This record gives sequence, structure tokens and C-alpha cells, in this order.
Amino acid sequence: MTTEPATTQDQTYDGLFQKALDGLHADGSYRYFAELERRSGHFPKAWHHGANREVTVWCSNDYLGMGQHPDVLGAMHKALDETGAGAGGTRNISGTNHYHVELERELAALHGKESALLFNSGYLSNWVTLGTIAARLPGCVVLSDALNHASMIEGIRHSRADKRIFKHNDLEDLERHLKALPAGTPKIIAFESVYSMEGDIAPIEAICDLADHYGAMTYLDEVHAVGMYGAQGGGVAQEKGLEHRLTVIEGTLGKGFGVVGGYIAASRALCDFVRSFGSGFIFSTALPPLVAAGVLASVKHLRGSSAEREGQRRAVAQLRSKLDEAGIPHITNPSHIVPVMVGDAKLCRQLSDELLNRHGHYLQPINYPTVPRGTERLRLTPGPLHSEKDIEGLVDALSTLWDEHGLPRQPAHPT
Amino acid sequence: MTTEPATTQDQTYDGLFQKALDGLHADGSYRYFAELERRSGHFPKAWHHGANREVTVWCSNDYLGMGQHPDVLGAMHKALDETGAGAGGTRNISGTNHYHVELERELAALHGKESALLFNSGYLSNWVTLGTIAARLPGCVVLSDALNHASMIEGIRHSRADKRIFKHNDLEDLERHLKALPAGTPKIIAFESVYSMEGDIAPIEAICDLADHYGAMTYLDEVHAVGMYGAQGGGVAQEKGLEHRLTVIEGTLGKGFGVVGGYIAASRALCDFVRSFGSGFIFSTALPPLVAAGVLASVKHLRGSSAEREGQRRAVAQLRSKLDEAGIPHITNPSHIVPVMVGDAKLCRQLSDELLNRHGHYLQPINYPTVPRGTERLRLTPGPLHSEKDIEGLVDALSTLWDEHGLPRQPAHPT
Repeated sequence: MTTEPATTQDQTYDGLFQKALDGLHADGSYRYFAELERRSGHFPKAWHHGANREVTVWCSNDYLGMGQHPDVLGAMHKALDETGAGAGGTRNISGTNHYHVELERELAALHGKESALLFNSGYLSNWVTLGTIAARLPGCVVLSDALNHASMIEGIRHSRADKRIFKHNDLEDLERHLKALPAGTPKIIAFESVYSMEGDIAPIEAICDLADHYGAMTYLDEVHAVGMYGAQGGGVAQEKGLEHRLTVIEGTLGKGFGVVGGYIAASRALCDFVRSFGSGFIFSTALPPLVAAGVLASVKHLRGSSAEREGQRRAVAQLRSKLDEAGIPHITNPSHIVPVMVGDAKLCRQLSDELLNRHGHYLQPINYPTVPRGTERLRLTPGPLHSEKDIEGLVDALSTLWDEHGLPRQPAHPT
Repeated sequence: MTTEPATTQDQTYDGLFQKALDGLHADGSYRYFAELERRSGHFPKAWHHGANREVTVWCSNDYLGMGQHPDVLGAMHKALDETGAGAGGTRNISGTNHYHVELERELAALHGKESALLFNSGYLSNWVTLGTIAARLPGCVVLSDALNHASMIEGIRHSRADKRIFKHNDLEDLERHLKALPAGTPKIIAFESVYSMEGDIAPIEAICDLADHYGAMTYLDEVHAVGMYGAQGGGVAQEKGLEHRLTVIEGTLGKGFGVVGGYIAASRALCDFVRSFGSGFIFSTALPPLVAAGVLASVKHLRGSSAEREGQRRAVAQLRSKLDEAGIPHITNPSHIVPVMVGDAKLCRQLSDELLNRHGHYLQPINYPTVPRGTERLRLTPGPLHSEKDIEGLVDALSTLWDEHGLPRQPAHPT
């Protein structure tokens, strides 16, 4: 089939779209997608079609390499043979498979909650849950951390509930907002455990104390923590023994667990409420049963094994230590996320292009709108499958580029 | 891990959630999910955990049985071995695989468009695309068919653009709205080809004529048509030779194509615009490469083979004819969707329970909010894998229930 000419009005509209895109090109924030071939069994190595070479991937959210774990792949092959390719419908209309039910049970157990509810993506789990609860509890006010993820922001926006943004991880500012609200007002404090782009961690216990005092629900996004923190991979709340104090724990199945999808774990009533009223849940074709089967194997494995978490901590410590030795500036934080700050969209892209083409290290430049303009960065997520040699190679390459571009070095961080 | 007691405020909030759920129980619209085991190779037969028996599925959106097609399963096994379980990131950050790129190229070709863009679900493709375009074109007005799917409605709502709802498939009402808008106003006419719950089909050509005359974009949801209509399965627009006249064709990968996901096909500039500005696209982990590989095989197969489409038409004609013979009232329409009207949520559930438990036919009652209250129905989607014996068995069972409940028969439809 050939492409026929567009209508006159479509050509006019295309002009408007192109003008907006030209703006992104002009300021260097236009995004070029790298076309990769993941090679199962060789992660973090992959084939990069643009550079036409094998690369080491440093920016994957398959943080623990579970996307190539034999238990996960085996479960998916088996479920593919058993159940076929897709779910065949929404969860309500023929789309609920035995594997979805088992996985929801497992995720509830992982977080010590009564229930869990699956979504097609982490984005949808935040958007639907916050959007549904905040819209349907009359007079509900959402207190939202200033650095919350886009999916939470859009969910709150969609609900049209009253929103108060509190300064990032700032308990005083949060309390100031809580105090200003009448006692009977339904309230949700929405925040994350590990913030994706900074790698810092919220004061969860103190926020729960405030929630108790002021009668607020707590909604904790643990997408950058599940699988990786806590004795069973239940996240930072599990690590700190705080799971029972959170109203909702939201997680993803596409990062630490290595597949795709999102979920919430909460009370039976809350999950049933979102299940029954959340448009983005009700009207979405369910995840393929084989995806649920793969995640189920991944969650079960990570509940029983700490080897992946220990390997990740080893790699993170090695990378930080070598960056410090080389004087490459990076943000110190208590998580597995290592942001190397650049502060300029074009330079950020140039550095990542040179890392890729000359040195075979692939990491995507992180530009607006993922981070505010002026805080562009290289975000490194070393994991258990990055060897010490990989890490040395990356830091050597960065060091070379730092010299060539005359970028400032910085003394080792006090830790 | 055991479930610990909830906080005091959580117990209070649970009371509010439960009260809303009690309302659904009271009016019969509470949804119980059927727990199924799809058995690849045996579709439309499946194992029903609640009824504890094998059932024939009549409400699946795996319309053509592509969810168990050997080409699709083979492609997914292969991609699972090659690439692993997941994509490992958003499309921008390490998540674009070779299979995504190939599939987008294939979908663009299927619809004769320059480009295509993948989403994690059909819901997201509608919500993100309409939400992004309508929000970012200053002054944009969306003209929306009264029966549009929830995902379009929510996308338009999210955009906060001005919206005009025109009467379902009513050209005069649409033109009245178009006429009332200033000539220079950016406009989108958003509609579907096959309406899911009625099975009727939009007057696409006449809507395109109006769009040309009044300078509007056209946004056509073909989720209940792709794979099934047109010489290559490109949908109703393809069947009628109208694809080049539509600005955007939106489709799903979870129904006729049998896997999961959604997409748009449109001009390069429009797809790039949504790719670059659509929050729900940018911030979602990409579909697993194995899903893209499975869909690619499915689309390629259905572009070359009409056997599945012919088999579906055979089954639809047989079912309609047998329903007519038995005098079971159903809506006549030009599509593959056969709605048997009941008009009461509790009766609708009762009929489907009896069909399931006594006769082994599984079809989910369709209640509010999927359809308006008072129009509850049994929605049948016969496909190429339903045998004549399956169809006879279903109509016999319906006929028995119609007698037992004293429901009105109706003479055969004039067609």
C-alpha cells in the first residue's frame, strides 16, 4: 500500500506540529530513540543499530537483569504454550486469567496488604488510582511532592481534585499544608520512595506520622524500589518495616521485576473501588497471561534471593568509588541511581553520543521534560550484571571526555 | 508476610470506598471477574475456575483467534529467547527494540500512512493522542461522537480543550456544530468505525467530506475493525478506500491481532509530535519486544490471509440466522458484533450465570458503565473458531432460558 497525499487541512495541521518539533530541535531537547537489540543472556550488552556495534547499556531500568532470568523466561515460554499470546479481553470481559489472579495474590503478600490490582503500565497504575480516588471522594485534597512523577501529576490533574504541592521531601512544608486544611477533609499524601532522577529517598516514617496526625491517606510510589529494597524486595517501606502504615503502595513490573506492567497493593476495599470505578483499568485489555506468569516467577525469585540486590549494591559502590577517584561530579544519594550532572541539553547529548560511538557505552541523555531544563544529566543505573571491568571502562571513557571538553572535576564526596 | 492492621484513618476511608461498592451491589452492576484458563490451541474453549468446567467463550475480543496462531506464538517464543522478557525502559531510555521499529513500519504500511506509534494499550493510544493534540493546539475544539469509547472521552477531558458532542453518527448534528465554529479554529472530529456495543458503523466518507469542507482533522478509532475489515485487515477505512482521507487511524493490538497494545497511524509530523509531547507515551516502559514480535507476525499474516475474516463472517451469519429462527431479539448491524438486548443488570447477570453453570457458555453480562443503565445486554462475538455446533448449542441454551424466564420472542429481522 502506498502513502497517498494528505488533505489540505492535514498539511496545514502538520505545519503546526512541525513548528513545535522545530522548537525541540532548536534547544537540543528533541529525542532520538536508540534502536537496540537486547540479547538475552548477554545483558547489559546489546546491539545498537544506529552505532552498528555492541554496547554496554548503562541506562536500563531492568535494574537487576531479571528480564533474562531463566525462571522468568521459563515461566513465559510455558504460559505462552498454555495460554497463547494475549488475554483476549478486558479483565471483566473474558480477560482475567488464572495467572493474573495468582500474581495479584503474590503482590499483596509481598507488601503485607489485603489485595493488589494489576495495570498495563506503572504510568496507568498511578494515573488511574490517583485519578479515581481523588475524583470520587467528595472534597478530596491531594498533597503532592514537588518532584512526583508525571504519571502521578497527570492522575491528580485528571481528577480535578484540589492539589497542594509541597516542597520536595520537606516535612515542614507538608505539615504547613496539612494544618491549613479542615480536619474532616479527605486527604491523600502522594509521594515516592526513591526519586528516579535524583536518587534520593523520602522520609517515609515521618510522612506517615503526619498522615496519622492529620488523618490523611498515604500513597507511596515504589517503582524504583520494588525488587531492590527490603528483605524480600518489597521496597523501601518493607526495608524500614513501614508497609502497614501506608494506604497504597504502587509499583512497577517493568523495572526491578524485568517485564512490564504496574500495580497497587492496598486494602481490599480500596483495590475493589479502583477496580470498579477506574476507567483506565476497566477499559484496558488485560496484560497477556504470559506476562503475569513471568512477573510471578520474578517476584517469587526475588522474595527468596538477595543475590541480585547484593550484586547491585556492589556495582553501585564500585561505580561511585571510581567516579570519585576520577573526580567526575555525581549526586550522592542512598539509592542505586547515580546521576552525573551536565546541565546543558546539547552537551548532554554530545557526551552520550561520544560515549556511544567512540567507547561503546550506551546511556541516554536525560533532558527536559524528564528533568527541568538546566539540570540535564547522564543517569547511570549499574546492576549486578555490570562487571568491575565494565565499570572501569565507563569511568575511563568519561574521564577522557571530561578532559577533552574541559569539564570541571571535583574532589571525592565526603560520604 | 502477614497483613497488619490498617491505621485508623485508613479504616475510615475504607468505609467510604465500601459504601460506594455497596451501591454497585445494590443495583446489580458490581462486576465479578471470571477466572479463566485460556488453553492455546483450543480457543474458544477455556477452563472456567468459578464454574469448574470447560466453557465456550463468546465474549472474547480475540476476534479471529490470532492469540493462538502458530506464526504469532512462534515469533514470540523466538523473540523471548533472543531479547528476554521486557524492554528494559521507556522508548527513549533504552526501551526501543528493533521489533518496535519494525512493527511501527508495518502498521504505517498497513494503513498507507507515513508513520505509526505504539502504546501499551488501546486505551493509552486514544487517551494520549487526543489528550496531547487537543491540549497543545491553541484553541482546539474536539467534535466527539456521543457514543465514543471511554478512552477518547477521558483523553479529551484531560486536554481541557473545548468539546462538542454530536449525536451518534448524525451528520446533520455534526455539521451544525462545525458551522458554529470560526473558520480558523483548529478542530478534530473524533469517532469510531465499528461501535463496540451497538456494532453499527460510522458514515466515514461523509464525515471526511464535512472535515474537508470545514477544515477539521479526523480521528478514527478502528479498534473493533483492524484485522477484520479491508482486503489486508486495515479496517473499515481500508475496506472503503478512505484511509488517505483520515488524519489519524487508531487501532489496537489486543483484539483482532490477538496480543496487547495500541497504536496510531498518521503523518510523520503528527506521530512525532505525540511521541515528543505525550506524557503517557514518554513515561511508559515500552511493550516487551516479544509482544511487538508477536503482533508483527499477526499483522503480516492477516495482511496476506483472508481465511480468518471469511470464517468470522460465516460464524456471524450463522449465529444471526439461528437467533432469528429462535426469535431471540438482537440488534441488526453490518458488523461482527451481535448484541442480544436484556435491559436489566440483574437479569443480564442471571442469564449469563445460567448460560455458564448449566450450559457451559461463557459470556460476560455487559452492564453500566460500559453501556447506559437500561440497555444491559449479552454481547456475542462469534469468530472463525466457533463451529456450527457451538453456535447451535448457544442458541438452544438461550432459547431454553428465554422460555424459562418468559422473555419476549421476536419475529426474524428483515435484512
